[in-house]
Amino acid sequence: MLVHTDYLWFNTKKRQEFVRITDDVQRIVEASGVTDGMVLISASHITAGVYVNDWESGLINDFQEWLEKLAPSGLDYAHHQTGEDNADAHLKRTLMGHQVMLPITGGALDLGPWEQVFYAEFDGKRRKRVVVKVMGE
Amino acid sequence: MLVHTDYLWFNTKKRQEFVRITDDVQRIVEASGVTDGMVLISASHITAGVYVNDWESGLINDFQEWLEKLAPSGLDYAHHQTGEDNADAHLKRTLMGHQVMLPITGGALDLGPWEQVFYAEFDGKRRKRVVVKVMGE
Amino acid sequence: MLVHTDYLWFNTKKRQEFVRITDDVQRIVEASGVTDGMVLISASHITAGVYVNDWESGLINDFQEWLEKLAPSGLDYAHHQTGEDNADAHLKRTLMGHQVMLPITGGALDLGPWEQVFYAEFDGKRRKRVVVKVMGE
Repeated sequence: MLVHTDYLWFNTKKRQEFVRITDDVQRIVEASGVTDGMVLISASHITAGVYVNDWESGLINDFQEWLEKLAPSGLDYAHHQTGEDNADAHLKRTLMGHQVMLPITGGALDLGPWEQVFYAEFDGKRRKRVVVKVMGE
Repeated sequence: MLVHTDYLWFNTKKRQEFVRITDDVQRIVEASGVTDGMVLISASHITAGVYVNDWESGLINDFQEWLEKLAPSGLDYAHHQTGEDNADAHLKRTLMGHQVMLPITGGALDLGPWEQVFYAEFDGKRRKRVVVKVMGE
Repeated sequence: MLVHTDYLWFNTKKRQEFVRITDDVQRIVEASGVTDGMVLISASHITAGVYVNDWESGLINDFQEWLEKLAPSGLDYAHHQTGEDNADAHLKRTLMGHQVMLPITGGALDLGPWEQVFYAEFDGKRRKRVVVKVMGE
């Protein structure tokens, strides 16, 4: 049994930014030596998410407008009484999900035709990380 | 350590359809020989989900009406400029989740009294798959 | 390879209550002997969730108000024709998620600076459980 851990670091220029990380994850899987198993990709910060969906800029735009509608910024959130201004980022990352588990088969990510993994930053412009943990044989 | 992989295939008659797959997953777990571990059940297509909830037709109806309210079809989504018409399916599957990890204890799915696993199709009428990966001993 | 299973039990005084369980999970991880691996924490009841976010009472309040807005109680849900009155609890737990997988590195939960694990009860006042399954070496 093999267990292998690595981290991906982000420091986005914009407050909100979605970054494709499929190839980074695949590289970590290859370094792990695991050919059959699973890989956990999980945001270590509570205002960021990790999700699987399409790599199409129109859809990414749709996601961002939709999140703003369901979890608007600029409201009078109770969390803001602590001095923070990012309650909406906590809600948005909850809608998108903060982690995924990808299957590994034959040494590669066992993904469907359009599946791509993304890091979803909702409160960026600072250094944040994602943990990548591979398990299998 | 055992790792076992299988796939479930779907081709629903309706565009949107929820299909109970608990027994199919249990069958794959039995075939794997794993008696203590976990099983990942993950939709390989980005307009479908996998979720755990109640097997009650009224509640399934509630879920579908609620998803239509939060992520309506028929809007002027940017994704549709590519020729697609299914942006709402991407959003709906995000709300329901696209994968679950079920514990296996004593050779069976270690589920609570009402837990059932479902495949949630939001853009059906074509062949799509779910990957099932069992790990444990 | 080690696999270790335990259960956390809850019987909340209020219908809706969020309970921090990070230390309970850490204790189970220590008992498992796993120093490198993953732990699955999954609600075994379909009106409860498990999620990772900030341990800040204002934000917890924001989450609860937001869930009530997106998945209101008191509506005329089809599920209520069975005699139940908790359809909103099923929807709310779906928004928050019902399970998380936490990485274990160096014998401890490999969490970011503000990550805390919570049990989210949406239909409490009765005995319900969460399964905790540790895998690794």
